[in-house]
Amino acid sequence: MIIIGEKINGSIPKTGAAIAAKDEEYIRMLARKQTEYGATYIDCCASVNEGELDVQEWLIGLIMEESDLPIAIDSPDPQVCVDAMKFCGDRVGLINSVSGEGNKMDIVFPVIADTKWGCVALLSDDSGIPSDAEGRLEVFHKIMDKAKEYGIAPDRLYIDPLVETLGANPESMLVFNECVRAIKEEYPTIHITSGLSNISFGLPVRKMINIPFMVLAMAAGMDSAIMDPTSRDMNGVLHATEALLGEDEFCMEYLEAYRDNLFGPIDRD
Amino acid sequence: MIIIGEKINGSIPKTGAAIAAKDEEYIRMLARKQTEYGATYIDCCASVNEGELDVQEWLIGLIMEESDLPIAIDSPDPQVCVDAMKFCGDRVGLINSVSGEGNKMDIVFPVIADTKWGCVALLSDDSGIPSDAEGRLEVFHKIMDKAKEYGIAPDRLYIDPLVETLGANPESMLVFNECVRAIKEEYPTIHITSGLSNISFGLPVRKMINIPFMVLAMAAGMDSAIMDPTSRDMNGVLHATEALLGEDEFCMEYLEAYRDNLFGPIDRD
Repeated sequence: MIIIGEKINGSIPKTGAAIAAKDEEYIRMLARKQTEYGATYIDCCASVNEGELDVQEWLIGLIMEESDLPIAIDSPDPQVCVDAMKFCGDRVGLINSVSGEGNKMDIVFPVIADTKWGCVALLSDDSGIPSDAEGRLEVFHKIMDKAKEYGIAPDRLYIDPLVETLGANPESMLVFNECVRAIKEEYPTIHITSGLSNISFGLPVRKMINIPFMVLAMAAGMDSAIMDPTSRDMNGVLHATEALLGEDEFCMEYLEAYRDNLFGPIDRD
Repeated sequence: MIIIGEKINGSIPKTGAAIAAKDEEYIRMLARKQTEYGATYIDCCASVNEGELDVQEWLIGLIMEESDLPIAIDSPDPQVCVDAMKFCGDRVGLINSVSGEGNKMDIVFPVIADTKWGCVALLSDDSGIPSDAEGRLEVFHKIMDKAKEYGIAPDRLYIDPLVETLGANPESMLVFNECVRAIKEEYPTIHITSGLSNISFGLPVRKMINIPFMVLAMAAGMDSAIMDPTSRDMNGVLHATEALLGEDEFCMEYLEAYRDNLFGPIDRD
């Protein structure tokens, strides 16, 4: 699984407060901790009303000093995403994200076309999130047409089929998995990613729902997640699911993650 | 999901000690607690070397006094299973279990033929557990032939495809799910059950594996589990998985189970 560590995001209250207070040490700690817990990318989202690019520069600088991991530049503004790429130096990362909305792809795709940068693409457009799989796959095909136009190979794309909260739409998971299966069948090398907590919005004991959401999505073919890599339970279930799906022979990786203390009781005396 | 509460089993050290000490109150407490936590059946397994039927009589008597739930009479000896049925009075339960081994079916099936009792049937035979799905489905068809002979309808059978530990067989879950899908396709009204913890035998932090095992098996069509209904995390994930699979519109049952305090933090002040 490709883990996009979500902790450095100004919309998380504690991180937002650290950004407002210019609390370097807190941001550094989040970068270190996510790295220790095996993240593949470190997401970086300023979530500020003004001076977003400056905050991105500051955050990315701190992450670069604390971690060797590539960065997922996260902003609703595609221009901020591409402008922030220069703060990453030679380190090839991800743009998070484009979608079928407005001219997002036309801003991002030409800039990353001749690079090795990847890109998260959401299956929504100017009318929002289509409620059924058919509608989302239509957006998906528009995205793939545009990616082809710019010569961006499927394996550089991280498609997020998007999830509605289960409390509002009982078919939410079924529609998500229908998208995952259809997309992976058409483009076996493409990546599928998703935030793991939208599914449980508004419901009690959210982890009880987020965990089986992840398991079922992985079984359908999701190979990436935007998540808190320091969540020990999510981590343990993630490694176990890979083993159950036959992708971790004799549980070698599960056992290694356990030995590295990435899940299970912290105190093992 | 049909929950067969597994706590009254002499092979669990604390329960075994209570049986040895004739500790009525402990057994009564297990019966009450599993009932409160929404079990469908209460499993009753003496697991003693001598006087098994007497212990069954004592245990079943206590369960009958504490709970209105039907009982799953659990013994490796099919004669004990059928002999203990009389202790259940008019309360129709389950025999746990027969398999393709020896003459188990020939002892149990004629006795339950003209009743409404159900029966758990394991997909093993005199040579043990076949390692692949093909071998287990062969045992399955032998069981179905025998059931047909005695006029036992598929919806009275709880097929346990059996699980090897993931540490020994990386294909364990895949073989299990292949069996589940094939069986449900052939007999849509049949039940599929399984213990939830065999999969993780010998591996650390077993719950991390048992949880996604349950989720993936439910997605394949398993509709019953032999489990600890008082495990709050298993409970929460079970209800969430039903909702994710589209079997709990607007999370009504998930929310009801939460309100009944069957999962989540115990202390909600």
